Amino acid sequence: MKKILILGAGRSASSLITYLLNNAKEYNYEVTVADTSLDLVKQKTAGHASARPIALDIADEKQTHNEISKADIVISMLPAFLHPKIASQCVSMKKSMVTASYVSPEMKALDADARKAGIILMNEAGLDPGIDHASAMKIIDHIKSEGGKLLSFKSYTGGLVAPESNDNPWGYKFTWNPRNVILAGQGTAKFIENGKYAYVPYNKLFTRIEKTHVEGWGDFEGYANRDSLSYRSIYGIEDIPTLIRGTLRMPGYCEAWNVFVQLGITDDTYHIEGSEKMTLREFIESFIPAGKADIKHRLADYVGIPVKGKIMDMLEWAGMFENRPIAIRSASPAQILQAQLEEKWKLKDGDIDMIVMQHQFEYELKGKMQFITSSLVVKGDDAIHTAMAKTVGLPIGILTKLIITDQIKLKGVCIPTVPEIYNPLLDELEEMGVNFVEKN
Amino acid sequence: MKKILILGAGRSASSLITYLLNNAKEYNYEVTVADTSLDLVKQKTAGHASARPIALDIADEKQTHNEISKADIVISMLPAFLHPKIASQCVSMKKSMVTASYVSPEMKALDADARKAGIILMNEAGLDPGIDHASAMKIIDHIKSEGGKLLSFKSYTGGLVAPESNDNPWGYKFTWNPRNVILAGQGTAKFIENGKYAYVPYNKLFTRIEKTHVEGWGDFEGYANRDSLSYRSIYGIEDIPTLIRGTLRMPGYCEAWNVFVQLGITDDTYHIEGSEKMTLREFIESFIPAGKADIKHRLADYVGIPVKGKIMDMLEWAGMFENRPIAIRSASPAQILQAQLEEKWKLKDGDIDMIVMQHQFEYELKGKMQFITSSLVVKGDDAIHTAMAKTVGLPIGILTKLIITDQIKLKGVCIPTVPEIYNPLLDELEEMGVNFVEKN
Repeated sequence: MKKILILGAGRSASSLITYLLNNAKEYNYEVTVADTSLDLVKQKTAGHASARPIALDIADEKQTHNEISKADIVISMLPAFLHPKIASQCVSMKKSMVTASYVSPEMKALDADARKAGIILMNEAGLDPGIDHASAMKIIDHIKSEGGKLLSFKSYTGGLVAPESNDNPWGYKFTWNPRNVILAGQGTAKFIENGKYAYVPYNKLFTRIEKTHVEGWGDFEGYANRDSLSYRSIYGIEDIPTLIRGTLRMPGYCEAWNVFVQLGITDDTYHIEGSEKMTLREFIESFIPAGKADIKHRLADYVGIPVKGKIMDMLEWAGMFENRPIAIRSASPAQILQAQLEEKWKLKDGDIDMIVMQHQFEYELKGKMQFITSSLVVKGDDAIHTAMAKTVGLPIGILTKLIITDQIKLKGVCIPTVPEIYNPLLDELEEMGVNFVEKN
Repeated sequence: MKKILILGAGRSASSLITYLLNNAKEYNYEVTVADTSLDLVKQKTAGHASARPIALDIADEKQTHNEISKADIVISMLPAFLHPKIASQCVSMKKSMVTASYVSPEMKALDADARKAGIILMNEAGLDPGIDHASAMKIIDHIKSEGGKLLSFKSYTGGLVAPESNDNPWGYKFTWNPRNVILAGQGTAKFIENGKYAYVPYNKLFTRIEKTHVEGWGDFEGYANRDSLSYRSIYGIEDIPTLIRGTLRMPGYCEAWNVFVQLGITDDTYHIEGSEKMTLREFIESFIPAGKADIKHRLADYVGIPVKGKIMDMLEWAGMFENRPIAIRSASPAQILQAQLEEKWKLKDGDIDMIVMQHQFEYELKGKMQFITSSLVVKGDDAIHTAMAKTVGLPIGILTKLIITDQIKLKGVCIPTVPEIYNPLLDELEEMGVNFVEKN
């Protein structure tokens, strides 16, 4: 009987654990789920016959070593910075490993040793990165095999709220790490369009949006992710004239978010003196020029929006002009904004999240231009098996199963960009209802 | 005979060396000038009888120790990060020290030991910081001694080009470190106005300008420096309702510079792939949205300026639309902009620079509002004794002389904010033609 060790049983591990336990009997393996909280592990494994719930503090090196030594494969759901340490133990004990995180330089450096040890270090095995790689590469490889010349690849992903749970003017609620949403896009976005490099600084990012239509689901807007250029080498499309990756939001979100960017209240690099004595209205006031006009007129004038209209309504709905105490001591602007939006953008009981991903391809085949869009929409089942937990957890589970059943024989540091990985992964995801709809 | 050791004979040391040598005989001291380049030192000391030019590499710890041990006082014109190391040697050998740099935490930590050793570590002894402290504190202390209540203090300084050498539409040429000018203002400016904190992010900084008039010299515009709030404790004016420190430019400069900020081309955090194969026009093109209109129309539309007018003329004059090769490999946007402006903003033979500083005070005295402006304008003598070299070097020289002649008896880490320092300093600066004009 094979043994799978899952390190970390947090929110993102729910669907993964359920999937692996559901398949345990058929594929004859046992699943050890380890977390600092034994209660959490017991709750997630719910007395399943194939589950072995244990308490494990990753700081306890001896116990960690001992558990890895007993496993055939290790799944790390720990924070990304811990992966290289776990990976290096896996290499020395010849155990394969799966993570949903980007390949770090430290992880990359283990490639040769992992090959020598005859094991696979499978990374970027979640949604984004993960399902995005697999689904895009399947189409890119198909276009190439047909003799097509790829001219444009645009890919957008958003973690959103389902239409039936969308009851606020932003069309958004936090379904994942709020801090990442507040700080999203800081730095400079880099992409290539019609053979020309494009650089978009943070202060312009949310004005450079692209409308994206998903059939049956309506319109979304996409803003560019930080570094699209690196995907040229990852996907083997070095000479592609247009390559953009971005994030999807509901229409109107970006224009309103840009107000926060222009004001400077997404800044996390300094602390506001006496924030614990301020109200939200005073906080906003400190970011706009003083003057005789009321706060809304001055803000509208400063950031160039109409003083009445949808954007101002969204700011007002978010509580930006309320005399509500902040109550966080010496907080950064980003912390203050986050705390406020966590109140406003909280998922209510029964709310359901939604993942939307769309790839858009343009290519030339036998002298003719061809277009493909490939779209994925996944809704959450409930507050535990959210769309986010499913789309991150299922590919990790499926790839783990494919590795221990020897259907993936690759060794070394891998990501799901090759047919041996993406074909069986996408096939099983489709069976599980995570399927792309292709349109020409 | 007292012995002064100057470490570093670069551009900023010229007026300092001249001043100290001119006073050497009268005050009976010798000046050792040390630099890695003996040629440079010989050129700067020009065979003066009181000068001892030597070659010294600060990395040679033994020789450095030896030279410090022979001196009575050490002036460090080295890069700021080296000061704490030199200071700690000075403390252990009981030698006083003078620098023009901000007091770093490491420097501050030497205060108690310096007092024990009976020496002074005089910092912030240049122009800004330096002359700004002395001249502002003299007036602040005077207002306090009269029983006045200080309500507002605004202080602006600019390193500019003299009107007779001003022959470009920006009203600006590089008279100091170009890199600092390119990166100026990045981060968030913090100040207080009418009792309310104000935070201005970089993307708004050059739109929040204040007009400043200097009698006899015309109008300037000021943008806020990064952290004005810290000056409340430095100047002992913790409860002041308005405190802003800023940088002066000629009118129009800020609006045009803001175009660079909005485009994102002052960014120094990433490198542009293939910059060595691009022209300036292509560089600019990569920062604005693609489209059918010509580059100027698209740029004007993107950053919200008229397509014809002063701002566009300034961008054009700066060569931003020229098909001129960049020729720097994998350069950051800031490096590309700097290289281009170094061509355009170069001081010509015979060009003269100019320092402008203005303090503006508002205070209440016996129930009446009072206003004082105190303004300093210094022009350079020539390309060596620039206004910048004079206003940085003279206060260092004067304070050094005051220390070795025992007119300043303070010990420990000091800056020129106290009467014992600022009175004799400002008196002698005035004799040297560096004088403030006060208006009520």
